[in-house]
Amino acid sequence: MNNYIWFPIVVGLLAILFAAYLARYVLSKDTGTPAMRKVADAIYEGAIAFLNRQYRTIAVLAVAAAIVVAIVLGLIGQGTSADKISLSWHTALAFLIGAFCSGVSGYIGMLVAVRSNIRTASAARRSLGEALMVSLRGGAVSGFLVVALSLLGVSLVFLTYGGLGGTAQIMAAPSLIVGFGFGASFVALFAQLGGGIYTKAADVGADLVGKIEAGIPEDDPRNPAVIADLVGDNVGDCAGRGADLFESTTAENIGTMILGVALFQVTGNIGWILFPLVMGSFGLLASAVGLLYIRPGVVTEPDQANGRDPGSIAMSQLNIGYYITCALSAVGIFIGSYLLLNVTNLSTGQAINSSGLPSWVWFGLAGCVGILLSIAFLYITQYYTAGSWRPVQEIAGATITGPATTIITGISIAFECVAVPVLAICAALGLSYFLGSRVEMGTHGIISVGGIFGTASATVGMLMSCAYVLAMDTFGPITDNAGGITEMGGESGAVRDITDALDGVGNTTKALTKGYGIGSAALAAFLLFSAYLDVLYQYKHNVSVYSVDLANITVFIAALIGITLIFFFSSLAIRAVGTAAKAMISEVRRQFKENPKIMAERPEDRVDPDYRRCVDISTQGALRAMIFPGLVAVVTPILVGTILGTQAAAAMLMVGTMGGIVLALFLNNGGGAWDNAKKYIEAGNLRINAEGEVDPNGAIHGKGSEEHKASVVGDTVGDPFKDTAGPSLHVLIKLLSTITLVLAPLYIFLHP
Amino acid sequence: MNNYIWFPIVVGLLAILFAAYLARYVLSKDTGTPAMRKVADAIYEGAIAFLNRQYRTIAVLAVAAAIVVAIVLGLIGQGTSADKISLSWHTALAFLIGAFCSGVSGYIGMLVAVRSNIRTASAARRSLGEALMVSLRGGAVSGFLVVALSLLGVSLVFLTYGGLGGTAQIMAAPSLIVGFGFGASFVALFAQLGGGIYTKAADVGADLVGKIEAGIPEDDPRNPAVIADLVGDNVGDCAGRGADLFESTTAENIGTMILGVALFQVTGNIGWILFPLVMGSFGLLASAVGLLYIRPGVVTEPDQANGRDPGSIAMSQLNIGYYITCALSAVGIFIGSYLLLNVTNLSTGQAINSSGLPSWVWFGLAGCVGILLSIAFLYITQYYTAGSWRPVQEIAGATITGPATTIITGISIAFECVAVPVLAICAALGLSYFLGSRVEMGTHGIISVGGIFGTASATVGMLMSCAYVLAMDTFGPITDNAGGITEMGGESGAVRDITDALDGVGNTTKALTKGYGIGSAALAAFLLFSAYLDVLYQYKHNVSVYSVDLANITVFIAALIGITLIFFFSSLAIRAVGTAAKAMISEVRRQFKENPKIMAERPEDRVDPDYRRCVDISTQGALRAMIFPGLVAVVTPILVGTILGTQAAAAMLMVGTMGGIVLALFLNNGGGAWDNAKKYIEAGNLRINAEGEVDPNGAIHGKGSEEHKASVVGDTVGDPFKDTAGPSLHVLIKLLSTITLVLAPLYIFLHP
Repeated sequence: MNNYIWFPIVVGLLAILFAAYLARYVLSKDTGTPAMRKVADAIYEGAIAFLNRQYRTIAVLAVAAAIVVAIVLGLIGQGTSADKISLSWHTALAFLIGAFCSGVSGYIGMLVAVRSNIRTASAARRSLGEALMVSLRGGAVSGFLVVALSLLGVSLVFLTYGGLGGTAQIMAAPSLIVGFGFGASFVALFAQLGGGIYTKAADVGADLVGKIEAGIPEDDPRNPAVIADLVGDNVGDCAGRGADLFESTTAENIGTMILGVALFQVTGNIGWILFPLVMGSFGLLASAVGLLYIRPGVVTEPDQANGRDPGSIAMSQLNIGYYITCALSAVGIFIGSYLLLNVTNLSTGQAINSSGLPSWVWFGLAGCVGILLSIAFLYITQYYTAGSWRPVQEIAGATITGPATTIITGISIAFECVAVPVLAICAALGLSYFLGSRVEMGTHGIISVGGIFGTASATVGMLMSCAYVLAMDTFGPITDNAGGITEMGGESGAVRDITDALDGVGNTTKALTKGYGIGSAALAAFLLFSAYLDVLYQYKHNVSVYSVDLANITVFIAALIGITLIFFFSSLAIRAVGTAAKAMISEVRRQFKENPKIMAERPEDRVDPDYRRCVDISTQGALRAMIFPGLVAVVTPILVGTILGTQAAAAMLMVGTMGGIVLALFLNNGGGAWDNAKKYIEAGNLRINAEGEVDPNGAIHGKGSEEHKASVVGDTVGDPFKDTAGPSLHVLIKLLSTITLVLAPLYIFLHP
Repeated sequence: MNNYIWFPIVVGLLAILFAAYLARYVLSKDTGTPAMRKVADAIYEGAIAFLNRQYRTIAVLAVAAAIVVAIVLGLIGQGTSADKISLSWHTALAFLIGAFCSGVSGYIGMLVAVRSNIRTASAARRSLGEALMVSLRGGAVSGFLVVALSLLGVSLVFLTYGGLGGTAQIMAAPSLIVGFGFGASFVALFAQLGGGIYTKAADVGADLVGKIEAGIPEDDPRNPAVIADLVGDNVGDCAGRGADLFESTTAENIGTMILGVALFQVTGNIGWILFPLVMGSFGLLASAVGLLYIRPGVVTEPDQANGRDPGSIAMSQLNIGYYITCALSAVGIFIGSYLLLNVTNLSTGQAINSSGLPSWVWFGLAGCVGILLSIAFLYITQYYTAGSWRPVQEIAGATITGPATTIITGISIAFECVAVPVLAICAALGLSYFLGSRVEMGTHGIISVGGIFGTASATVGMLMSCAYVLAMDTFGPITDNAGGITEMGGESGAVRDITDALDGVGNTTKALTKGYGIGSAALAAFLLFSAYLDVLYQYKHNVSVYSVDLANITVFIAALIGITLIFFFSSLAIRAVGTAAKAMISEVRRQFKENPKIMAERPEDRVDPDYRRCVDISTQGALRAMIFPGLVAVVTPILVGTILGTQAAAAMLMVGTMGGIVLALFLNNGGGAWDNAKKYIEAGNLRINAEGEVDPNGAIHGKGSEEHKASVVGDTVGDPFKDTAGPSLHVLIKLLSTITLVLAPLYIFLHP
């Protein structure tokens, strides 16, 4: 059974080779016209400059954090001083490795993404199929690297920390790895915050001064902030979400492994610990198959499409690839459960049937619940953020009475769209717990061990498609950039039609990834919470740690602070965008004023604005603005844990996570709905009759109308919601888990 | 000790006489000019018409609910069928009495408020002092009636249900009274929802069509919705908040009494049960003294004020009255603790010293914590919503870059302003628990009984000033209306200055009351939650009911649904405003179009618009729109309790309450800040230099500027936040408590 540890390592290495193959494929494509190259080079430069400075800042912060963690764990805690020093350096080293892997996967993924944009733009001159394939594969480099490095990192650290040693070593190893997860969370928090602030500061600056004050269109080369805006799409969506999902898959692996330790102890079967790693590898293989399915041969080109919209053609291909990935994942999870999760009677060696079925069937079914949840989230997110359904249309209709009603309606939709996803999460949690609890493996207090592992299996199942989903996500900024490059490179209308369509699909896939991210974070939350209680039990050997009792006043207070942290952190994230955007607005205004030639009447008289300065200002602003929210997010849970104790830390984590799930859904879906309401109006779908009411037979009120202006206000308000605060909350709730896991010994020391 | 039950009854009756005296004082004042009377009569008519229809609807719903409750409790539950039938009719009857008392206090309070407005307007022609006194006393009728009827109702029901009987009867009585609290909550929910929807539908309609489309000023008689808008201030703020605080004080009394039962059982001292009623009576006396302090003799008139703003003169008088009330309450709580809460050794009859001090000192100190919290909330709310501090000024500054940044900044302020109040609540809870737990009275599981009663004492202390705070709150709509009446009645500038200043003060006091409402609801939450666990224990006699363990999956799911309900309910409340406002907008547009004489150039050619139709439309819209959100609020907790069981119901209540506190703070303070940012600009405080930056030496950008328009958008967005959704959440979280308390026997029956 031990040998299964080699499976994730081999598959992880293969996945890196696969990513290299994809990168080579993309880079072998041509880079279009000189005009296109000029734009693309500016984006590339700006993105790399930002990333270099950002990761330098993060590296300094991470090393400082690692030193603090090492000192804290080395000085205090339980056991002999050798024990403490071992825990101390193992955790700090794992922290640094986790931070490094997260950084590397984000960096390389970005490097390829900002070279894929121009190649997508160029391919769009030839065919939809080729453009789709280039952009998706460019995004997949990031997707496969993220999952592979997470798997490899966790597996290798586990191996090095005694994963093939004696029972005691195996049992200790997962707890030593939590540092890896904390490192990943730490980097993810700053990567997402910094990227999210950058992208929206640039976007708001470009829109407010360029579009509204100067009246020039989106992606116009005369706008000094246009390159910063295009860079922002990469650093926010690609690097940020990459770090986010790196953390998700890492945290989920480690959480499941810690739960597996307790089962390993009972059954002597290391399969419980290795399960998430092996399933993650299966998921990588499934994602590769799903991805390879999409090729020009299966794509109907626009000229043969009988008027079918190229966007919907591309979207349906992406969907098919996703279904293939999910179907293979479902098969995989049954195989994996069969191989690894058979509950055997230790004395006879026979598999035990639970409730009439072998245990692997139950866990396989629980895994399928997770896969189904990921598909459900796809539909729910589309309903709330795509123009074909009520919510977006309602917001578009509300633009008739101006920006105030646009905002009010959007906020009410945002509050509303929390309900169905949460019910889906509750159903998935309850069902997977129920399925798992059919396997009779005893209880911790009132908690069924099988039930908890059922929720773990669901989380594992949901995250098997992670690489594919991340490929679809990074597809978003690539196609967005490709649109900008064709526009600014002066390409023809047919080419623009293709890149515009892909850009629209990219907006949808970005929204889907956020839904996926929050859904998987919610599932993982219960798991990580249970893992934390397991860790407490390992130290305290007292079953009362399994109770987190809200009737206890310190637990109650901690829970209330947890949900407040979520709100306060959102405030800081949104405010940071405002601060960074203000500098950008002044700069764009300054350029227009001091250099009137930028806006010269005749194109031949025009000079280029100073793009680089705008990029610099966004970079500085974002890096400065990300520090304070990041520190608040790190310090608050530590304060609560040290002052109020272990159970209070658990409550803060738990209720903070609930608040985070709900508020992230509010922010992400609200922002997405406003964005698409604007697109809905721009596409000429809003028709108004003489009475000023929405009417399918009325006149079209499109770009430039008062309704459109109101929708731009809505979109601008939604920008920091969906691209800064919302995604940062995903990271925050996982950070709460990993920080609590890592610092458990400290809390126990202070509150024995 | 039994005789203390007569104290709240006597004081309650005296308070009603006092309210009658205040009403007579107000009604004895003159009603100004015929022009003023015309406006005031229209407001009066509209308000009464709405209230009559609203309470008729609520009465039907309440009777239906009472029947359902009676049937459910009569058919299922524990004990003999005589027990069940007794519980059934006691609860249903208490429900109806509670509903009736809440309705009556709201109705009569309103009746006086809508007659005080014109008298305030008329008094303003003579002096600031007289206008302040008339409006405050008009508001105080509502304040004293609310608290007095709640005290009388609870005391009399307690008495009738066996409060002076044998030990067993005394112990059973508080649980029988919970129906009274549920009835109050039920009415409050619909009163607040209906009133909140009405006021904002009218306001949004009047603003959007009147101010923005037709370009006429606020409170202009040409606006068909102007009367509906003025009516709305009364039905939303006066009747709604009255019902809200009726429920607060009722729920807190009942919760404390239930906790007192357990202590009565141990000590044989009925003082534990009577404590909240006696303290409430003390509070009424203290509020009366604070109120009577404010009289023309202590007010500096504008002509002798050396340029001091009449608003700040009036506000400082109100503050002095409040401090008097608080100081007397603090003295009262020590006296009350001394008389009622001495822990005595049953065998010797001697008072037991706890931690070196008599127990009454500890509980008195805990009560003072509550009083201090109410003062802290006064300052915190002012900081976040008044123009003199950073938050409002930041929003005002953000108007320079348009409505989008105005909204973004406002939302970030709204998220931010959650933190300090929650920390204050946590500190108050923790401290009062600590103080109470010094009194050694044993534990329930890990909960200190003394500690819980400490939090109860803090809640009691905070709510002692309820009548005074409510007087300040109802002062708001009265002065708002007075402003409208002077404006439409064509009074001189000096009179307008006084009513405008009082109107501004009213906005502040309205915001303060909301802060007070949510703060006391938060304190009471922990108490009501503990009372629910006590009720469970009375049925189950198993100490495990005192644990609400988030590690249990059903508890976790229920908690997640609890917080989701808060968001979903907010969506419904905001959406209801939109629906009702739409009808209003169409109607106002129709009148302007079909009757151009309304806007005739020369005043003598003008005809009055049809105010009554607008009032009708708001009334119908609000009544129709309040039903669905109300039903969702009532049905969801019942479903969770019946499907997931008693502990899940507790978790939903608990985490739902936390979410409600945080979101209500977000909505109330955010809305208040936007409102005052607009006022800040209208007052000419926004100065902008040539670079487009805020600058104390820049030019004033006031009414009519682009900045002002952006601030109007912010204000409009904030309207349903602060006047519909936020206050309705106050009611919702208390409804969650009372519904859970009343239906505990059902949940236990289904999940024994």
